[in-house]
Amino acid sequence: MTEPMIPVILGTARPGRRSAQVAGLAVERLRSKGFDGRLIDVADYAITGTETDEDERKLDGYAKLVAAADGFVIVAPEYNHSFPGELKLLLDSTYDGYNRKPVGIVSVSSGLLGGARMTEQLSLVALALEMVPVAPTVHVREVEEAVEGDEFSEEGLESVFDQMLSSVCWYAGALKAARESG
Amino acid sequence: MTEPMIPVILGTARPGRRSAQVAGLAVERLRSKGFDGRLIDVADYAITGTETDEDERKLDGYAKLVAAADGFVIVAPEYNHSFPGELKLLLDSTYDGYNRKPVGIVSVSSGLLGGARMTEQLSLVALALEMVPVAPTVHVREVEEAVEGDEFSEEGLESVFDQMLSSVCWYAGALKAARESG
Amino acid sequence: MTEPMIPVILGTARPGRRSAQVAGLAVERLRSKGFDGRLIDVADYAITGTETDEDERKLDGYAKLVAAADGFVIVAPEYNHSFPGELKLLLDSTYDGYNRKPVGIVSVSSGLLGGARMTEQLSLVALALEMVPVAPTVHVREVEEAVEGDEFSEEGLESVFDQMLSSVCWYAGALKAARESG
Amino acid sequence: MTEPMIPVILGTARPGRRSAQVAGLAVERLRSKGFDGRLIDVADYAITGTETDEDERKLDGYAKLVAAADGFVIVAPEYNHSFPGELKLLLDSTYDGYNRKPVGIVSVSSGLLGGARMTEQLSLVALALEMVPVAPTVHVREVEEAVEGDEFSEEGLESVFDQMLSSVCWYAGALKAARESG
Repeated sequence: MTEPMIPVILGTARPGRRSAQVAGLAVERLRSKGFDGRLIDVADYAITGTETDEDERKLDGYAKLVAAADGFVIVAPEYNHSFPGELKLLLDSTYDGYNRKPVGIVSVSSGLLGGARMTEQLSLVALALEMVPVAPTVHVREVEEAVEGDEFSEEGLESVFDQMLSSVCWYAGALKAARESG
Repeated sequence: MTEPMIPVILGTARPGRRSAQVAGLAVERLRSKGFDGRLIDVADYAITGTETDEDERKLDGYAKLVAAADGFVIVAPEYNHSFPGELKLLLDSTYDGYNRKPVGIVSVSSGLLGGARMTEQLSLVALALEMVPVAPTVHVREVEEAVEGDEFSEEGLESVFDQMLSSVCWYAGALKAARESG
Repeated sequence: MTEPMIPVILGTARPGRRSAQVAGLAVERLRSKGFDGRLIDVADYAITGTETDEDERKLDGYAKLVAAADGFVIVAPEYNHSFPGELKLLLDSTYDGYNRKPVGIVSVSSGLLGGARMTEQLSLVALALEMVPVAPTVHVREVEEAVEGDEFSEEGLESVFDQMLSSVCWYAGALKAARESG
Repeated sequence: MTEPMIPVILGTARPGRRSAQVAGLAVERLRSKGFDGRLIDVADYAITGTETDEDERKLDGYAKLVAAADGFVIVAPEYNHSFPGELKLLLDSTYDGYNRKPVGIVSVSSGLLGGARMTEQLSLVALALEMVPVAPTVHVREVEEAVEGDEFSEEGLESVFDQMLSSVCWYAGALKAARESG
């Protein structure tokens, strides 16, 4: 039997992105829980909305990963109260594969509000893609101080992060079982 | 074995509300599918945010219904791009009972856009209550013409309505099975 | 010449509401800037969505205040990622008087995220009412510690609060001048 | 004296985009009202979030246009209940120039709901950029039938479109006057 696959989508391509570290932590913890965690980095897609044939080939690979996945984690910063455009371009490039699978959302911010407004907008996009956005959501505030190396230094953040991952895994199992039994 | 219980919450108390007819249709169809459908009418609660002892007793009954339910349908109009205040007061009055249960949202509007903006705001509240808002959502546009007696007269609306109910029932079963197996 | 009138709407009726203190601060500062600041307390309206004649008389007074105002400040807590139902009931009770007038939104939360999600939903309702939601918005996090007596104790909060008030006043003047010149 | 400048931002780069026609109509009508209307086409920017020096030069041109503008119209389709990623990438590339200027939003959809959910998410981004989203918003439903050549064929749509443009122009004048007088 294969392990359930839960990719972590890193939703910003900006140079210097702090979200990369948080996404790395998510992959590592999913693996330590026995899941097939792997990183999907939006920077590896670099599309602009007017796709070339080469773009189409890359996006085809993304669509296959999505279809094979049992659930998702998305880690992304908040820009102007919403998500990065490159994340939206990637999410919009396929459709059916997301259906009836859970998604855990991690917002990353250098400010105090932790990107909660991004999470709200992204949750609505996830619902449009027929995913199940799970609770709790994770909000990494003041990211420069909150994450050090491969550890969360903000008290309580690690616990919420693990609850989110457990919730994604719980839904991934529940919905997979139901999809397979019809 | 008892039938799964899926209450239909009628989310407006306004005199002349057209949503009542749509909520009635939902109850009837849930019953014909073998579910324990029943109406929860916000007008029966009539709270104002500063609860009296009598309010508390009524809300206690609501909380018990929510805890016993396996899923929900909410039927509500759009006022100023969002939901009626009386619906929010009722939803906010309890918490734990909603957890990991599906909700199908039906927006009702006399206009052309069908209340889709209400659905977005209500979906975010449903996520905060740790419910699963299911696809498809139903948007009853120009309600005066779209519903006649106990039938939908707008082409296609009946089919979307039934898909929504099926989706609520599918999730109700999947999540109940998973909750019960731990 | 009369002073510009900018009412502060206190958007929760819950016993023990901490928002009352923040709303009081807003009224006081508006007065010290030479504006006609006054409190509109949702608890004085206590409507349920099924209005009686007595409700109508109270709401008529609210509608007149709104029509006479030059701008608004709304202070409200976040419940389940959105605004209190009693605030929505009151806002929905009139329409024309809000048009082309600014609104400054202050969210109040005992949590770390400061109610930013409430602000987003309320901003969309404000736009539906054809108001101008101004920047900056104010987010009072961990309200038990952030406000003491008639002072903000969180560093930086007082400054953002004053910027918000200045912005409401700037827009109130700009839009009043334009409305009056046609 | 120079004419007020109100650029129309075409917010999708997708081949076959129907929004282009609607954006063209907006430019034409702004000119016929005596404004300096001009098209900003996201397809001319084609950025991916990891900017090169050449990207920076193009974006510098965009930032200058934004700074010189007195108001904006944005025409964009709804993808998965939100805006296209390429539009978000472009909007996020500058900041100060948007401040205290109006924006009229036109959503374009081949469906029945007219893209109203995109408008809500984009309005919140516009507020984050400190713009003033004006009423009415325009929702072009079933775009294949609603626009023919340089005319709107859906009854009522032309009138709402003109009201939106008038509202942008009214706010552009009101806010420019206030900015210039301090």
